[in-house]
Amino acid sequence: MWSNHINYYLSMRTHQLVLSWIENELSAGRLALGGRLPAERSLAEHLKVSRTSVREAIRILEAMGVVRAGVGSGPEAGTVVISDPTAALGSALRLHVATQHLPVADIVETRVLLESWAAAKARPDAPELDEAADLLHAMDASEGLDISGFLALDVRFHLALANAAGNAVVSAMMGSLRESIQGYAAELTSGLPDWDATASRLRTEHREILAAIREGDGGRAATLVAAHIEGYYKEAGLAAGL
Amino acid sequence: MWSNHINYYLSMRTHQLVLSWIENELSAGRLALGGRLPAERSLAEHLKVSRTSVREAIRILEAMGVVRAGVGSGPEAGTVVISDPTAALGSALRLHVATQHLPVADIVETRVLLESWAAAKARPDAPELDEAADLLHAMDASEGLDISGFLALDVRFHLALANAAGNAVVSAMMGSLRESIQGYAAELTSGLPDWDATASRLRTEHREILAAIREGDGGRAATLVAAHIEGYYKEAGLAAGL
Repeated sequence: MWSNHINYYLSMRTHQLVLSWIENELSAGRLALGGRLPAERSLAEHLKVSRTSVREAIRILEAMGVVRAGVGSGPEAGTVVISDPTAALGSALRLHVATQHLPVADIVETRVLLESWAAAKARPDAPELDEAADLLHAMDASEGLDISGFLALDVRFHLALANAAGNAVVSAMMGSLRESIQGYAAELTSGLPDWDATASRLRTEHREILAAIREGDGGRAATLVAAHIEGYYKEAGLAAGL
Repeated sequence: MWSNHINYYLSMRTHQLVLSWIENELSAGRLALGGRLPAERSLAEHLKVSRTSVREAIRILEAMGVVRAGVGSGPEAGTVVISDPTAALGSALRLHVATQHLPVADIVETRVLLESWAAAKARPDAPELDEAADLLHAMDASEGLDISGFLALDVRFHLALANAAGNAVVSAMMGSLRESIQGYAAELTSGLPDWDATASRLRTEHREILAAIREGDGGRAATLVAAHIEGYYKEAGLAAGL
């Protein structure tokens, strides 16, 4: 019992040692995107720590979107370095929204800030805008597209616009904000009195935003995006009595 | 060996079960800031998972700044719910900068975006501005303040300005951006040809930014902050030959 206790606190420090080692390998370029971490056992031996500590560090890196833990054996097995900051930041923000440290209103305001900046900065000839146009076509489908299908395309449309501004940090943050209040937004949406009317309005607004960017009118695109996002939360919030 | 393997993949799923349970407790308000998680053993029994899985989930929550793991025993022991999104987002971003998925230039550009927005929005009578003024006094000290001491105060000054805008998400993101390139910035700074001259310029700029906010001239404050941040990375980057 006592020795379990001691091991527990020793491993508290050692999993951080593993994290630092991996971060250094990444910074030094010895470990790169698509590369594989050493096997759990060799890493534990190399760093003179327990396999439990190695596994804890890998769990944290997984949660931060830096690795995908390996499954199975053979050449395809092993823990691979990936880069998915959006999902990781999104889970962290969602947890802090749950503790009520981060108010939903602040999340929405930050979304408006990042997305209107991106709309103003997006290049009119960015290839991401073609993707955005394709997504608008898909959202026009009147059959086989329920609310959640529509919203999934909507997320991708907004991300495509953000990507057209060419800043990976803004894209990751914007995606994570949206992800952090997904549950809240779904609840709001389900309370809307007339989804078809709302969807139709959203479609028109999307078209206007894309057109403004295509025409090189960043200022107008930014204003339209801000009104589009704020209008939606306002309409849905009023319907939900918030 | 084989059963170890099986346990490993079972626990891969179960630590996520523990995470979901804790997130639900937070969302429902049954677990709040300052509250304590159930003991590891009771949580494991309640959720019918291994203690290893519970510990892995707690490690992830620690890394996300949602809990502080307990040390020792007695009434003060146990894992406490905290809210430190800045540190958590900062570590995640830093790891993604290390994988080179997130370019430093994009981090700096996002910092400029968030801080100039905050400077434009800060209320001239916000109490955080008094704190900012005190920090400027502390940064005037010519004795006993080395570069790292100066920079530590500088971080707090910029955070105080951001806080004056009253958006907790923007504050957390801004702090995390700065944290994510701390190592890079320290390296840049150490290459500056004349630190005293740079520090003197930074002091003057800080004063001008604070004065503009106090006078209610948000537009000017935003422009000054952008020039201040961009100027610094440019000067330090040129000195480092980047």
